[in-house]
Amino acid sequence: MNQMLSPALSETAQVDEQSVQPLPNSRKVYVEGSRPDIRVPMREISLTPTLTEQGTEENAPVLVYDTSGPYTDPTVKIDVRKGLADVRSRWIEERGDTEELPGLSSEFGRQRLSDAQLDAMRFAALKTPRRAKAGHNVTQMHYARKGIITPEMEFVAIRENLKLQEAREAGLLDSQHPGHSFGASIPKEITPEFVRSEIARGRAIIPANINHRELEPMIIGRNFLVKINGNIGNSALGSSIEEEVAKLTWGIRWGADTIMDLSTGKNIHETREWIIRNSPVPVGTVPIYQALEKVGGIAEDLTWELFRDTLIEQAEQGVDYFTIHAGVLLRYVPLTAKRVTGIVSRGGSIMAKWCLAHHKESFLYTHFEEICEIMKAYDVSFSLGDGLRPGSVADANDAAQFAELETLGELTKIAWKHDVQTIIEGPGHVPMHMIKENMDKQLECCDEAPFYTLGPLVTDIAPGYDHITSGMGAAMIGWYGCAMLCYVTPKEHLGLPNKDDVKTGIITYKIAAHAADLAKGHPGAQIRDDALSKARFEFRWEDQFNLALDPDTARSFHDETMPKESGKVAHFCSMCGPKFCSMKITQDVRNYAAEHGLTDEQKAIEAGFREQSERFREEGALIYKQV
Amino acid sequence: MNQMLSPALSETAQVDEQSVQPLPNSRKVYVEGSRPDIRVPMREISLTPTLTEQGTEENAPVLVYDTSGPYTDPTVKIDVRKGLADVRSRWIEERGDTEELPGLSSEFGRQRLSDAQLDAMRFAALKTPRRAKAGHNVTQMHYARKGIITPEMEFVAIRENLKLQEAREAGLLDSQHPGHSFGASIPKEITPEFVRSEIARGRAIIPANINHRELEPMIIGRNFLVKINGNIGNSALGSSIEEEVAKLTWGIRWGADTIMDLSTGKNIHETREWIIRNSPVPVGTVPIYQALEKVGGIAEDLTWELFRDTLIEQAEQGVDYFTIHAGVLLRYVPLTAKRVTGIVSRGGSIMAKWCLAHHKESFLYTHFEEICEIMKAYDVSFSLGDGLRPGSVADANDAAQFAELETLGELTKIAWKHDVQTIIEGPGHVPMHMIKENMDKQLECCDEAPFYTLGPLVTDIAPGYDHITSGMGAAMIGWYGCAMLCYVTPKEHLGLPNKDDVKTGIITYKIAAHAADLAKGHPGAQIRDDALSKARFEFRWEDQFNLALDPDTARSFHDETMPKESGKVAHFCSMCGPKFCSMKITQDVRNYAAEHGLTDEQKAIEAGFREQSERFREEGALIYKQV
Repeated sequence: MNQMLSPALSETAQVDEQSVQPLPNSRKVYVEGSRPDIRVPMREISLTPTLTEQGTEENAPVLVYDTSGPYTDPTVKIDVRKGLADVRSRWIEERGDTEELPGLSSEFGRQRLSDAQLDAMRFAALKTPRRAKAGHNVTQMHYARKGIITPEMEFVAIRENLKLQEAREAGLLDSQHPGHSFGASIPKEITPEFVRSEIARGRAIIPANINHRELEPMIIGRNFLVKINGNIGNSALGSSIEEEVAKLTWGIRWGADTIMDLSTGKNIHETREWIIRNSPVPVGTVPIYQALEKVGGIAEDLTWELFRDTLIEQAEQGVDYFTIHAGVLLRYVPLTAKRVTGIVSRGGSIMAKWCLAHHKESFLYTHFEEICEIMKAYDVSFSLGDGLRPGSVADANDAAQFAELETLGELTKIAWKHDVQTIIEGPGHVPMHMIKENMDKQLECCDEAPFYTLGPLVTDIAPGYDHITSGMGAAMIGWYGCAMLCYVTPKEHLGLPNKDDVKTGIITYKIAAHAADLAKGHPGAQIRDDALSKARFEFRWEDQFNLALDPDTARSFHDETMPKESGKVAHFCSMCGPKFCSMKITQDVRNYAAEHGLTDEQKAIEAGFREQSERFREEGALIYKQV
Repeated sequence: MNQMLSPALSETAQVDEQSVQPLPNSRKVYVEGSRPDIRVPMREISLTPTLTEQGTEENAPVLVYDTSGPYTDPTVKIDVRKGLADVRSRWIEERGDTEELPGLSSEFGRQRLSDAQLDAMRFAALKTPRRAKAGHNVTQMHYARKGIITPEMEFVAIRENLKLQEAREAGLLDSQHPGHSFGASIPKEITPEFVRSEIARGRAIIPANINHRELEPMIIGRNFLVKINGNIGNSALGSSIEEEVAKLTWGIRWGADTIMDLSTGKNIHETREWIIRNSPVPVGTVPIYQALEKVGGIAEDLTWELFRDTLIEQAEQGVDYFTIHAGVLLRYVPLTAKRVTGIVSRGGSIMAKWCLAHHKESFLYTHFEEICEIMKAYDVSFSLGDGLRPGSVADANDAAQFAELETLGELTKIAWKHDVQTIIEGPGHVPMHMIKENMDKQLECCDEAPFYTLGPLVTDIAPGYDHITSGMGAAMIGWYGCAMLCYVTPKEHLGLPNKDDVKTGIITYKIAAHAADLAKGHPGAQIRDDALSKARFEFRWEDQFNLALDPDTARSFHDETMPKESGKVAHFCSMCGPKFCSMKITQDVRNYAAEHGLTDEQKAIEAGFREQSERFREEGALIYKQV
């Protein structure tokens, strides 16, 4: 595909058809907040009834968190050339602290806009950017600290909550295990006031640039559901704008909570515009990548002025968070010299090279407060990059890594002084037993600012399967308190991910994030597990597929062995065949137990099994014979 | 495929061609023990030299544990109709405590042998079985407790050790992180005497039926490398004998340490013979599956006599370990009545049904000592089954599960009284924060008898990806002390695995087991990670592929983006393109640092980074400017 060069992209671009298909037995629902323009999307999965000997019993539908945006709403017609509908303009304008600019503030942005050769690929429905009025700070953190609950905060409270109160009243939380959260402060219910207080405290962020009006707000913090990020972006070697937009819509369909556009090839500016205008989730970038392109790939030629212009260019497009590697200090660079894999972060290595070439601290560090000024004028959040993260198990938790983390902690305090929302990036490659130290040090150094890690990969020996090596570490660090997990695809270390790889990466990370929610004891996290397990036990195959993170794959795997429609209602499965099925036998056991009235035992179980198992050991067989 | 019914299987069956291809840049080597017939296989992966500005530097080949048997030895011609060459007969016969039997002892075995209709599918090169002479006990545990180091013990000591002493002298262990082993007793080097003592203690087993002469011995225990099992087996709905043999050879090619034959369909007896005769790894079974087939699938009709005949039938074929669900007691059954997913273990549900139908304890429990007598006459090891394991996150760690575990602990002591080698099976579905309790209780109840778990799956919501949901739990429990991890394939809960699924399951579990070895600090475990990471950093693409758990997939993923041969030697990769590559920049940084002589810093790093980072913070920039 090379539609970038076609004269008609701005007219021909189409939504990826796979991304707008309805999900099976699912309905997009909106929960309204305190005002009619707060409409929080959720996905409701309806289930079939349980067949019993007495008749049928209804199974309540299951509500799940929905990152897919309007793409999965059949009542919305998507046109990627026009972008998504406006969600937030009224909220932003009502606050009265921003103004529409006469045009783009960045020199580079204006150059691109005036270049007629780019018209063919330019996003056509461009809007004029907004910025804070002089002297104003428009970050969610700023409002939170002033005690204001914004519509964005209310939106995420409803979103995180997933009608928890109703579920609790219906008894759906009764079977959930108490979790172990390592000192997190997860409430029984997420209220708008809780959201506000967490943002004010710096323990959570809502990445929400005032120029990203299409955004459905979401929150990142250790006391909320664990989030995942999917990376997309073209490179010098491949991938067109339309492909990147398709990766975005495909990624959020499967559950990406945010998307990072890591483009390093041609037309980064135009690609980003298409992505943001079509993204209901926050978009992050690494501005130094584009800055480097602007100086022809020569790190030494980077300047503060050029970088500053890049920040403003991107902020006015609506980028929600910037990865900035301001913790790579000159004095830390020699600490990497004996590493097995040196500096593997692209941003980190660019800055290290710059520092060495100029024999001074990087402009990211020396101009950090000026960067804060830009961030707070658009509400761009910091994602403080870990430029010295380990690129191999051997280099995990070393002096370079932890020295940088301490600097990130210092920078967090500066960002907070400006009320700029901040998260901290983390590794990388770390063997299992060294993961917790990462989390603990981050919580300590950065005063519980949300942690955002890449994996970590728990071994280096499985290229081709690094979604798995990293998913293992991601699940663990999510449990320990990491707020967002950056996905890794099977192509990591080997090549650029295609759509299949994006999906595999996303699903793997949804598993990791959800496993972490269960382990932390996030209220209601177990509802979907329980519903799926009940469906599985009752041979409600369709419900089992539809409740799965990936219904399509579950269904197709089943159909490989037992393709006939009848197989999906059969009370057995292909593993054991019709006569010999453990679940069927168990149902027989249960029926038997019910017929013979095992009330004493059942009461005993409810009273707690420790004492029970004592009593059962002594009396069990006897009771049984009396039945 | 339906070659089972062809009249010619015993003449036409062929080795799976994919399983006998050489692994890239790998050489099968044998390390000889104290006698020439102890020849321990390993795989040596040769590497290309590192290109430096001064010339080239050799990279030492990497030795890896090799489960693939003679299939990957190009000097061996494999004929699956004849089975593998004899490895152990001399060792067994030398001990003088066994005798060749006049024929099969089991009634069922004799029936099948005399059935001419089975000739076409029967393994042709049948051998007469051996059994302990009257009054003798031929288990490895029995020898170990008498102070005897058998050839099997010496074999596994060499195998586990992987020439560790040479690696240590070459400095290859210097970069390895100290692990955290939760109280394991991992030695610096595995000696034959250590193997003996661990087996005598019950903390490890060598599953090695005297009728499995083709076996390359291996060891299972928390102080050794973490092992993985792959399940194969036909069912009522599919799969031929030849396919099952291909799954075996394919599974061990990718790293299965043992194979369980879980066949439940037709011709279980004949399928098993083909599998064992072609298996260099221990073969486990669940004898109750076949017993149930013999009574037409009616659990109530099972009898001790029929089960006993099945044990003998299988023991004389050479099955190395039996899963026996002897801990499912009548009084525990009602404890499962309120579960979300009842009893999901097939063996467990069969026994529960039997117990309820007869209102008495199962014959597995009441005849346990008689079972021990059979086990010790052939050296079949117990794998005490967890018939009440949880089938959903909701049911994890409940009264039924832990009550059974306590009984398994009691049975372990009885087995040990008979010097019968024993491992304990574990769950299942367990959220992350409840995994450690499983391991701790097992160590306590079963006095460190090796634990062997299925996963556990850390969430229920991802059918189609349960190799991943379970791989996460497997890595963790392996770290905590689990000795063997039973793989789960992507088809779990949905259908029967094909060859691709077997490979995916095996690789996922090799990752989990290796991640656990790293976290436990198993000596030398990090050598392969370091070699691969060094290759990655130096753009030695071929070495990176060849050191990977799955070289084929790594190579093909790379070639998707950058297929030309030149890409594999290029000093960049497709993620960043030719100019902009973090690893290249880091090499520049390193060259720069080397040129400018950063000796002070380098020495400082070696002295430990905590004090260092203090000094660097104060003086770093200054030192740098002096350079």
